[in-house]
Amino acid sequence: MPPLEFFRLQTRQEVLALYERFPAVGAEQIELAAACGRITAAAITAPEAVPGFLRATMDGYAVRAQDTFGASVGAPQYLEVKGEVPMGAAPERGAGPGETLRVATGAMLPDGTDAVVMLEYTAEHPDGTLEVRRAVAPGENVLAPGEDVAPGEVILPAGRRLRPQEIGLLAALGLTAVMVYRKPRVAVLSSGDEIVPLEGRPRPGQVRDSNAYLAAAQVAEWGGLPRMDGIVPDDFAALRAALAAAMDAADLILVSGGSSVGVRDLTLTAIQDLPGAEILVHGVALRPGKPTIMASLGPTPPKPLMGLPGHPASAAVVMEVLGRPLLTQLCGLTDPASWGRTVTARLSRNLAGATGREDYVRVRLRREDEVIWADPVLGPSGLLSPLVKSDGLVMIPLGVEGLFRGEEVAVQLFQWS
Amino acid sequence: MPPLEFFRLQTRQEVLALYERFPAVGAEQIELAAACGRITAAAITAPEAVPGFLRATMDGYAVRAQDTFGASVGAPQYLEVKGEVPMGAAPERGAGPGETLRVATGAMLPDGTDAVVMLEYTAEHPDGTLEVRRAVAPGENVLAPGEDVAPGEVILPAGRRLRPQEIGLLAALGLTAVMVYRKPRVAVLSSGDEIVPLEGRPRPGQVRDSNAYLAAAQVAEWGGLPRMDGIVPDDFAALRAALAAAMDAADLILVSGGSSVGVRDLTLTAIQDLPGAEILVHGVALRPGKPTIMASLGPTPPKPLMGLPGHPASAAVVMEVLGRPLLTQLCGLTDPASWGRTVTARLSRNLAGATGREDYVRVRLRREDEVIWADPVLGPSGLLSPLVKSDGLVMIPLGVEGLFRGEEVAVQLFQWS
Repeated sequence: MPPLEFFRLQTRQEVLALYERFPAVGAEQIELAAACGRITAAAITAPEAVPGFLRATMDGYAVRAQDTFGASVGAPQYLEVKGEVPMGAAPERGAGPGETLRVATGAMLPDGTDAVVMLEYTAEHPDGTLEVRRAVAPGENVLAPGEDVAPGEVILPAGRRLRPQEIGLLAALGLTAVMVYRKPRVAVLSSGDEIVPLEGRPRPGQVRDSNAYLAAAQVAEWGGLPRMDGIVPDDFAALRAALAAAMDAADLILVSGGSSVGVRDLTLTAIQDLPGAEILVHGVALRPGKPTIMASLGPTPPKPLMGLPGHPASAAVVMEVLGRPLLTQLCGLTDPASWGRTVTARLSRNLAGATGREDYVRVRLRREDEVIWADPVLGPSGLLSPLVKSDGLVMIPLGVEGLFRGEEVAVQLFQWS
Repeated sequence: MPPLEFFRLQTRQEVLALYERFPAVGAEQIELAAACGRITAAAITAPEAVPGFLRATMDGYAVRAQDTFGASVGAPQYLEVKGEVPMGAAPERGAGPGETLRVATGAMLPDGTDAVVMLEYTAEHPDGTLEVRRAVAPGENVLAPGEDVAPGEVILPAGRRLRPQEIGLLAALGLTAVMVYRKPRVAVLSSGDEIVPLEGRPRPGQVRDSNAYLAAAQVAEWGGLPRMDGIVPDDFAALRAALAAAMDAADLILVSGGSSVGVRDLTLTAIQDLPGAEILVHGVALRPGKPTIMASLGPTPPKPLMGLPGHPASAAVVMEVLGRPLLTQLCGLTDPASWGRTVTARLSRNLAGATGREDYVRVRLRREDEVIWADPVLGPSGLLSPLVKSDGLVMIPLGVEGLFRGEEVAVQLFQWS
C-alpha cells in the first residue's frame, strides 16, 4: 500500500462503492412472533393456498349465483333454506339447484354454491323459504381458494424487511419460523486517554465516552447488535489487542474517539498490524467527517472497520452517511425501502458550502402554513446539542458553492424525527 | 347507555377525541444503553456543564489571542513554548503573556489562554520559539465550559422520544439511567370458532390466527409490548373470563377476529358485563373498518379496549388509523415527530370514495423520472397480499366523491416502507 501521506480524500460515492466486498452476515431461524423488522435470508414460497377454501366475506346466504339472476325487490327469487354452515367446520351438506344455506362471514361455502347474498337483501320466511331481492354474480362476496396466495407462489424475495403485514401473511400460511439474516454484531471501541466511563465525575481534562453511546444507539436503531468494547488507552499494544479481539467477535468494528492527529496515527498503525488489514480510506471528502478511516480486516470474507472522527457531530454524520449504508449491506437488505427517509423543505437562510467536500448541515424542520421550512442549526461539530435540536441533514453537493434561502432541499431525516 | 341499535357510525376525529380520557402508563428507570426509542417520563435537567472545561477543538498551540493579533505569514508573531498539555489531565502550568503550550484536539487549555492556533499556521523552532503566522480571536478553536449544555438547563422535556443523539448527550452528562414511560402492555385476543393456532394444517372451514400476529407486530413496532392471549371460543363465559384476565394484566386490550355479526354481538355483550365497562364506539365511519368497537373498562384510570374488524386489511387499517394514535397516547409521547410519516405522490388512476365514510386505499409507491406515483392496490379487505404489495394508505376524505388520476395525494406510510 502507498504511504499514508499519499491518500487523498475519497468521495462518498467512492467509499460506498467499496462496500460490495463485504458480504451479508449469516442467517438464523427465528420465531415468527419475533421476526418483525428482520430481513429475509431466502425467498419464501407459499406451502399452501390462502384461503384454503371458498369463503364467505359477508353474513348472508350461500347460493348458486344463477339461481338469483333477475332477482329484485319487485321480483324476488325464492330459494329453499337447507340449514346453516357452522363456523370453523365443513358444511354438513351441499346445495342443489334452488337450495341455500345460511353462512356467517368467514364460513366455508357448501358444494354447489358460488356466491353469497348479503343478509340485508333477503328475508327468510317461517316456512324455510328465502326471498332474494338482489341478484349476485358468481364469486360475489366470497374469496376463492388461493385468491390471496396460490400454493408455490413466491411471496417474498430474499433481502426484504418484514413488516407487520408480512408477519400476518406468514402466519396465515402457518410459517411459525422464518430464516432471516442475523443482526450484524458491531463492536464499538473508544480510544483516547481523555475518554472516561460515564460513571463518576470526570477530572479536569477528561470527558465521558458519549460518542460510543451515540454510535451504539444508531447501530441498534438500524438493525445491528452493538457491543460496547469499552475504552482503550492510547497505546499501540493495548489498541492492537482490543482491535484483534473485536475482529474475532464482531462483524463490523467501529473505533470512536481519538480525535487528535497523534491518536489517529496510532490507530492507523494498530489497524495495519492486524491480520489481512488493508486501509481503504484515510480521509473522506465530507464536512464534517474528514478524518474518517475505513479498513478491511482478516482473511475471506473480509470484515469492515470504520474509524470515526472524534467530534460528536462529525461522528454522527459519518455514521448517517457512511455507517448506515454499510450496516444495511451487512444486514442483507437488498432493497432498502426509502420512502419517508427524506422530506422536501425550503431552506430558511443562505448556506455556504465547503470547498472540495460534500457538506452536511443540521436542520430543524418547521411547518408554517403550508410550507415546510428547514432551519439550519449551526454550531461547531464538537457540540452535541445542535444534533439534539435537529431533525435531519441537508447536503450541499461537492462543487456547489452554496444553497440559497427559499431553495427547495431534500432533508435526510434522523430516525424518529 | 343507549341500546346498541342507536349507535351511529363515529368519525375518526370523534374517536380520537375520546383518547384523552386514557392516561399514559407509568414510568420506569432504565439503563441509558437500552433507552433509545423510549419516551422520557419527566423533563431532564443537566446536572453539570458540557464541556466541563475550556477545550481545544484543533491540534495546535494554546495562546492568549491578543498575543497573536496582527500575525501573518509576512509578519509572524513569536511566542515561547512552555511544554505540552497531556491528554485527559489538567495542564501542569498556565501560560503568561507571550507564552504557549502544545495542545491536541480535546485537550484542556492552560490558565491564561483563550484560543488555539492551528498547527498548520505555526512553526516550532528548535530553541522553543513558536512562529505564529495567523492571528486568532478569543474563543477560536476552543469550546467554552457549558457551551454545549449549561448546568441546570432543561435539555429534554417529558414525552419526547429518545434518539441516538439524545442518548449521546445524556451519556456526556453522566446520566447512566433515565426515567421513561414503560412500554404499554397490549393484550391481543382472538375470538371466533373458525380461528385456529398457526401450528398444523387447518381443517376445512378453519383459518389460522393471522390477524393477531399482524396486530401484535404493529404494537411492537409502535412501542408497545404485545402479549398474545390466544384464541377464545365463541362463548359468553369464556370470552368474558378472557377479557377480565386481559383487563387485569394489560394496559390496552385488542380483540381480533370475530367477523360475523353474531360473534360481534357476543363480544359486545361480554365487554358490557365487565366492571366499569362503557361502550364508546360501535361502528366507525371508515372504509375498511366499519365494525370497530371501542370501550372503556374498569375503575379509575380507565383502560381502553378496541375490537378490531375480522377482515385482515380492515383490521390493519383500523390499527394504523385508530390504534396507533391510541398507543401513542398510552406511551406518553406528547409531541410525536411526524416528519417522513407521509409522502406526497401523484395518483395513477381515479378513485371513487365511499359515501359517508372516510376511505383508505392501499397504494404502492413508484418513482418514475422525478415523479412519485401512488398506484392503488385493489382487492377485497379479506386479502392480506394487497397489504404486502403496498407502501401506505391514501385517504379519501368524508364527503369527497373521489380522487382523480394525476392528483397530488398524501400517502400515509406503513412502518419500514
